[in-house]
Amino acid sequence: MIGLSRLSLNQATVKRLPLAQALGLCQRHDIPAVGLWRDRVAELGVTESVAAVRRSARHVSTLCRGGFFTHADPDGRRAAVADNLAAIEEAAALEADALVLVSGGLVPGTRDLGLARRMIADGIGAIVPRAAGLGVRLGIEPLHPMFCADRCVLVSLGDAVDLALTFPAEIVGVVVDTYNVWWDSRVAADIARASGRIVGYQLGDWLTPLPADALLGRGQLGDGSVDFGLLTRHVLAAGYGGYAEVEIFNQEVWDTPAEQVAATVKARFAQLLG
Amino acid sequence: MIGLSRLSLNQATVKRLPLAQALGLCQRHDIPAVGLWRDRVAELGVTESVAAVRRSARHVSTLCRGGFFTHADPDGRRAAVADNLAAIEEAAALEADALVLVSGGLVPGTRDLGLARRMIADGIGAIVPRAAGLGVRLGIEPLHPMFCADRCVLVSLGDAVDLALTFPAEIVGVVVDTYNVWWDSRVAADIARASGRIVGYQLGDWLTPLPADALLGRGQLGDGSVDFGLLTRHVLAAGYGGYAEVEIFNQEVWDTPAEQVAATVKARFAQLLG
Repeated sequence: MIGLSRLSLNQATVKRLPLAQALGLCQRHDIPAVGLWRDRVAELGVTESVAAVRRSARHVSTLCRGGFFTHADPDGRRAAVADNLAAIEEAAALEADALVLVSGGLVPGTRDLGLARRMIADGIGAIVPRAAGLGVRLGIEPLHPMFCADRCVLVSLGDAVDLALTFPAEIVGVVVDTYNVWWDSRVAADIARASGRIVGYQLGDWLTPLPADALLGRGQLGDGSVDFGLLTRHVLAAGYGGYAEVEIFNQEVWDTPAEQVAATVKARFAQLLG
Repeated sequence: MIGLSRLSLNQATVKRLPLAQALGLCQRHDIPAVGLWRDRVAELGVTESVAAVRRSARHVSTLCRGGFFTHADPDGRRAAVADNLAAIEEAAALEADALVLVSGGLVPGTRDLGLARRMIADGIGAIVPRAAGLGVRLGIEPLHPMFCADRCVLVSLGDAVDLALTFPAEIVGVVVDTYNVWWDSRVAADIARASGRIVGYQLGDWLTPLPADALLGRGQLGDGSVDFGLLTRHVLAAGYGGYAEVEIFNQEVWDTPAEQVAATVKARFAQLLG
């Protein structure tokens, strides 16, 4: 279905490794692409990060992440836009396929989902010109509804597609993350609706029960409830031609030697998506 | 908007009280209705539970709960139907406005959401004749998507309405629970679509962060992210004329004296829905 030549390893899966070491891991395991996080890029510096990516001959599938546009005060919203403009510059320098946007939760002090959604639309509108100028694609990622209050009020792929469709297709798309959307009876229809707009595809399994920190419930492919074959077929049928990026936040995975994590990522990917 | 004459206290909010004591609490606090749980009904016996409800002059808004139709083996599915038929008898004896159905998660050993959904449709189909015969309304309750794998694959109000619409309106409806549906950008449209089918309305707030046991994240009204005014206006506009039932699973609430819990429930209800 989708070969190892389209596998990407999101850096958060081997959270303890700095950028250069994560790139080295991908080289040793013949993983052709990597999803990078801005804190690790900043740690090394953008120029040196770009050089390290080139030396490693890896492709950058996503840069994680921009967004977080929902702030009660105008200063907070301006700072968010400024930070997103910086993220766009970084994504351009790294030649990332997409800058992932996690849009932000409820505006502090409110319970108004509509206000938060309008603020996100405004925030993305404010950064689209820079993205267009630098040729960076923005990927709106819906999170799981359990993160609605504090991280992202866009909690279904439908929400993300509805917003993306209000911008030009060559600049604003969506990121499909299996962990966040697997439960949704509308996901097949919304993936089809996102045709030409899917700019990233991230993979993580849903573990039961949820861990005490709900952020860390993502498992290696095959360890949970997600039907990866089904979702991948829908994403490919919608014309997605990019990388499939394994992104796992999980304490046990982080406590496992990175070489072993990478080997398991490859084996599971080949087994479930090959 | 909705007066205290339509307040119901779900027994799980004062989990430590047996049925008779929960009824006494509602009498003392002038709460006219109660949502009952089957384990507490069984503890006292159905006949004596019915007598206790009559003596207390309280109305039973819901009986919690039937459902859990998704089993890998035919014996398990038959046992689930038998248990639901018994629940219907109990709901009839208690003159409950609705029997709440929590439909069941993925079929053990599978990742097939469609199979689970079809099994739920079959299960409800098998119990509708008995419900019709006894005049009991069944309420399909969608749970929050974080419970999709292990408790209920119907995880949006839209999912529940779609299924309810395949059965006669006088027998099968939906239960709207604020905690489970507040995040959904389609909820207003789906509440409208459920017009004439809403057979229960349950209230609990969404607390952030999620507690270590994700089942226990429900808070007193006003302590979290839910806009109760907005959702209640939609539910009333859809013609719902029943009780609004406060249902809170929360260790801190359970550790608080029941008299104080009931007083807080009333005060918050009056403040946010009055």
